[in-house]
Amino acid sequence: MSPHTVIPIRPSQKKLATKQNCHKVCKALLDAQAYNDKKGVIYHRGAVYANRHDTDIELDYRQESYFFYLTGVEDPGYHVIVDINTTMVYLFTPSIDSTECLWKCPPAAPNKLLRLYDVDSVQDEQDLDQLLYELNPSTIYTLSTTDTVLIPSFFQPRMSTHGCLRQVLDECRLIKSPWEIKLLRQVTQASSQAHIALMRDAHPHQPESELVALFHWICSRHGLTRQAYIPIVVSGKRTAVLHETRYKHCLPGDDPHAMVLVDAGGERFCYATDITRCYPVSGTFSKESRTIYEIVLKMQETVLAHLKPGVMWSDMEKLAIRILCQELCRIGILIGDENELLELNIPTTFYFHGLGHSVGLDVHDVGGRQTKDHGDDDEEEERLSTFLVDRPLEANMVLTVEPGVYFNDSWISTWTQCPGYEHYYNMDRIRQYSVVGGIRIEDTIVITDTGHENLTTAPKKVEDIEKIMASGAHRDNTIDFDY
Amino acid sequence: MSPHTVIPIRPSQKKLATKQNCHKVCKALLDAQAYNDKKGVIYHRGAVYANRHDTDIELDYRQESYFFYLTGVEDPGYHVIVDINTTMVYLFTPSIDSTECLWKCPPAAPNKLLRLYDVDSVQDEQDLDQLLYELNPSTIYTLSTTDTVLIPSFFQPRMSTHGCLRQVLDECRLIKSPWEIKLLRQVTQASSQAHIALMRDAHPHQPESELVALFHWICSRHGLTRQAYIPIVVSGKRTAVLHETRYKHCLPGDDPHAMVLVDAGGERFCYATDITRCYPVSGTFSKESRTIYEIVLKMQETVLAHLKPGVMWSDMEKLAIRILCQELCRIGILIGDENELLELNIPTTFYFHGLGHSVGLDVHDVGGRQTKDHGDDDEEEERLSTFLVDRPLEANMVLTVEPGVYFNDSWISTWTQCPGYEHYYNMDRIRQYSVVGGIRIEDTIVITDTGHENLTTAPKKVEDIEKIMASGAHRDNTIDFDY
Repeated sequence: MSPHTVIPIRPSQKKLATKQNCHKVCKALLDAQAYNDKKGVIYHRGAVYANRHDTDIELDYRQESYFFYLTGVEDPGYHVIVDINTTMVYLFTPSIDSTECLWKCPPAAPNKLLRLYDVDSVQDEQDLDQLLYELNPSTIYTLSTTDTVLIPSFFQPRMSTHGCLRQVLDECRLIKSPWEIKLLRQVTQASSQAHIALMRDAHPHQPESELVALFHWICSRHGLTRQAYIPIVVSGKRTAVLHETRYKHCLPGDDPHAMVLVDAGGERFCYATDITRCYPVSGTFSKESRTIYEIVLKMQETVLAHLKPGVMWSDMEKLAIRILCQELCRIGILIGDENELLELNIPTTFYFHGLGHSVGLDVHDVGGRQTKDHGDDDEEEERLSTFLVDRPLEANMVLTVEPGVYFNDSWISTWTQCPGYEHYYNMDRIRQYSVVGGIRIEDTIVITDTGHENLTTAPKKVEDIEKIMASGAHRDNTIDFDY
Repeated sequence: MSPHTVIPIRPSQKKLATKQNCHKVCKALLDAQAYNDKKGVIYHRGAVYANRHDTDIELDYRQESYFFYLTGVEDPGYHVIVDINTTMVYLFTPSIDSTECLWKCPPAAPNKLLRLYDVDSVQDEQDLDQLLYELNPSTIYTLSTTDTVLIPSFFQPRMSTHGCLRQVLDECRLIKSPWEIKLLRQVTQASSQAHIALMRDAHPHQPESELVALFHWICSRHGLTRQAYIPIVVSGKRTAVLHETRYKHCLPGDDPHAMVLVDAGGERFCYATDITRCYPVSGTFSKESRTIYEIVLKMQETVLAHLKPGVMWSDMEKLAIRILCQELCRIGILIGDENELLELNIPTTFYFHGLGHSVGLDVHDVGGRQTKDHGDDDEEEERLSTFLVDRPLEANMVLTVEPGVYFNDSWISTWTQCPGYEHYYNMDRIRQYSVVGGIRIEDTIVITDTGHENLTTAPKKVEDIEKIMASGAHRDNTIDFDY
C-alpha cells in the first residue's frame, strides 16, 4: 500500500488468466464418465441489461459468473464457444447498430479485445453460425439457464443442458488458482479497509443507510467498483435477524448494549469477498455484549486453528457448536450435561446458520458436496451449486468462517417453550443477554497446504475495535426532511 | 437546512397521504367511459425479493411504483385491494413463518402499520380470500404485470387486465399533489447537494466509479437511501454516449477539453429526481468546451423561460432545436439557411434525444400523451406509460428540461456522409469542437400556475462551476491493485 498511488482501474489491468479456467474445465469434461463425446463444444451466453418492472429504468447490471469464469468479460451480451478437444476459446461480441451506439459504448475492436481478454478469437455474433458449421460439434454443452436463442435451429437437437457441464464447472471453480487467490486477497484487504472506516464513523443516531453508502464509497476508493452482495447493516435488537437489508433505522441513541452488525464485501472483476464485523454503537462494549462477542470470537478462532487440508467441514461445524454449548453453560444461559444439550441441538436456539461457505465469483460460491453421478436431475444440479462445503477441505479452497450468537425472540420462544425443554434454559440469563441482539464474526480465508491464510485484515479483538472507534470523528447531516 | 440536524429516516416520518392517490384513481375510474361497473375493486401486488441469475444472492430490491402510489408501502410482498365505490383501502401483509423471521424482520403489527400507512385496514394475506367473498366484486381491475397467483380461482374469471386501470393510474400520477411536489423538491435539493460535492471532488485520474460511490454517499447523508436510477458518470470523448454506466475508466489526465458528465439523482420514499451536470475535468473550461456548454445552457434557459400551463411540449422541442441550429451556424459548424437546416433535421446530428420527460415515482415517469380510447391494446397501453409528454402542459406536472450537444463520431459520420448533405457541415469546425465530447444540462422542474419552479439547486453557470471546482480538495487512493 502506498498512500499516493492512483488506482489503475481498467486501462492498466493485467489480462486475467481465464484460459487456465477453460483448460481445467475441458480437461475435467474429457475425464468425466458422463462425457462420451469425441467432438463436443461448450456454449454459453453472458448476461444482458434488464429493466425494472414495467419501465425503461435500467437495473444494476452484473455479469453471470460462469460466463466470467470462462472469458473474463464483464460487459453484457457476449457469447463464448469453447472447443473441448482443443481448448480454443471463441468470443463473440453483441451486434450493435448505430442508434444503439448513441446510448452505450460499443464493444472495442477485436484486436483490442484480444489484448484485454484471454481468448483465441473475437468475432461478431453474426458469425456464430458459421463457426458452428465449421466445428460441426456432435454435442453442444450448455447450462439449463443459458439463453440459446442465437443457436441455429439446425444445432438445437445437439444441445445438452442436462449433462455434466455444471458439475464440472462447479468443481473447477471450487479450487482457486494462484491468480484467483491473489485477486481475492486484494479484494478482501480492500473491503477490510472499508470495515475499518465504518468502525471509525459509526455513532448513535446515524442512519444505517449512511453506513451502507460509506462502505460503498470506501470500497470504490480502493478499486472495488461493486458490492459483492447487498450489504447488511443492522443495529440494536435487529442484529438478531440474519439478512435484513432495508436500512430504515438509525443506530440507537442511548442503549449501552446496542451493537451494529455490518456484513459487507466489495467485488472486483466479479470476484467477491464476505466479511462481518460487529461493534458497540457507543464505542465501548457493555459487560453483556463483550461476553457474547468473546464467545463468538472463541468459536471462530478455535475453528480457524483447526483448518487444514483433509479436515471435514462438518467436524468444524460440530466443534463450533460444542464451544458455544460450553460457553453458554459457563455463563448460565444453558443448564445440563454438555453432550445431552448437543444431542438435542439446544445450542441452535442461539446459532441457526451454517459455519461458512465457499467464496469466489459469487459470494455464496459454488458448493463442494461429495461428487456423485446424478445424470439428468436438474434439481440435484441446483443443490450442488448452492450447498455448503461438505467434504474434506483441500488447499486453495476459499471459505468464510462465520459463527454467530443471536437472541432472536421468536426463535427463542419456539425452543424454550418446547415441552420438556424448559429446564435446559435459564430465562433470567437469556433476558439479561438478549439486549445484545446478535453477533456474527466472519472472515474470508484460504486453505493452504498446511493450514489456512486469513485474507481478512479488519480487526476483531475487543481492544482493537474500541481503539479504532475512539479515533472516529463523527459528522452531522445537513438537510431536514419533512418526509 | 440546519448544519447539526440528524435526519429522521423512518421513525419520525410523516405518513404519506397515499389515500389521496386512491381517491383520485377511484374517481377517475368511476368517470371513465370504459368503466361501466357498479361494483369493481382494484387489486395489485407489490414487488418481492429476487435473486441473481442461478444463485441465492439477493438482488437490490425496490418497490413497484404503482403499488407504492396506492399504498406508500416500500416493503416486499404486500397486496392491496381498493374498493372503487367506497375508496376503502385494504392492505395485506405477506405471511412469514418463524424460520423466515430468522432471515428478515417480519411486517410490524397491524396497528403499527395503520399508523405508518394511509390505509383503512391491515390483514394477513391469508385473509385476502375472505375479503373478496365479502365484497364480491363484479370486476377486479388489475395490471397485466400484476402477480395474481393469490386470487382464488373462483374470482379469476372476473379479473380484468385490459381495462382502463393503467391509463387512469398514469393520468393521476402525471399531475402531482402538493405533498408529492414537496417531497420531489426535497429530493431534488438533496441530490443537488451531491452534485455540488462531486464538482468539488472531481479531478484528473480519478476513477469514474469513485464519483458514483461518492454521489451515493452524499445522497445518503442527505436522507436519500437509494439512487433513482443507475448513475451515468462518463468523461472525455465518451460523454458523447448517452447512457454509459460501466465506470471502467478514470477521468482523463492531461486533456484541457475533457469534460465529465454526471447524470444522477437520489430517491426517497420511491420518489425520484433527475439532474445532469457537466464540468471540465481540469476545473477550467477550455474555449471549445465553454462555447458548447453555453450553447446548451442557452437552449435550456430559453425553454425554461417559456414554460407555463398550456404550452405544447413539442413546441419546446422545436424551440430548443432552433436555438441549437442558430448557434451551430454562428460558430461555423453548420452552413446554410436556418429553416432549410431545420427542415432536414440537420441539427439532430448533434442532439438526438428528447428534451425531457415526466419525473415522479419513476425517473422516466408515466407519460402524458393525448388521452385516447385504446381499448384492449396492450402495446398502446405500454406506449402511454413510457412516452414523453405530448400535450399542453398543466400545473403540477414535474418534468426534466435536458437539452444537449454531442459529438458522437459514428453518428456524425452517418449524417455528414449522407449524399447531398455534405455542404451543410464544416468538417474542420466539427473536428475542432469534437474534443469536447458531449454536454447535457438537466434540471427537474415543476409547472406552476404562471410558469415554472426549478427544483434543482446545483449551479450551472460557468463561473459558479469553476469557483466550486477550485474549492475542492483532491484525494489520493491507498491500495495498489495488480488486477
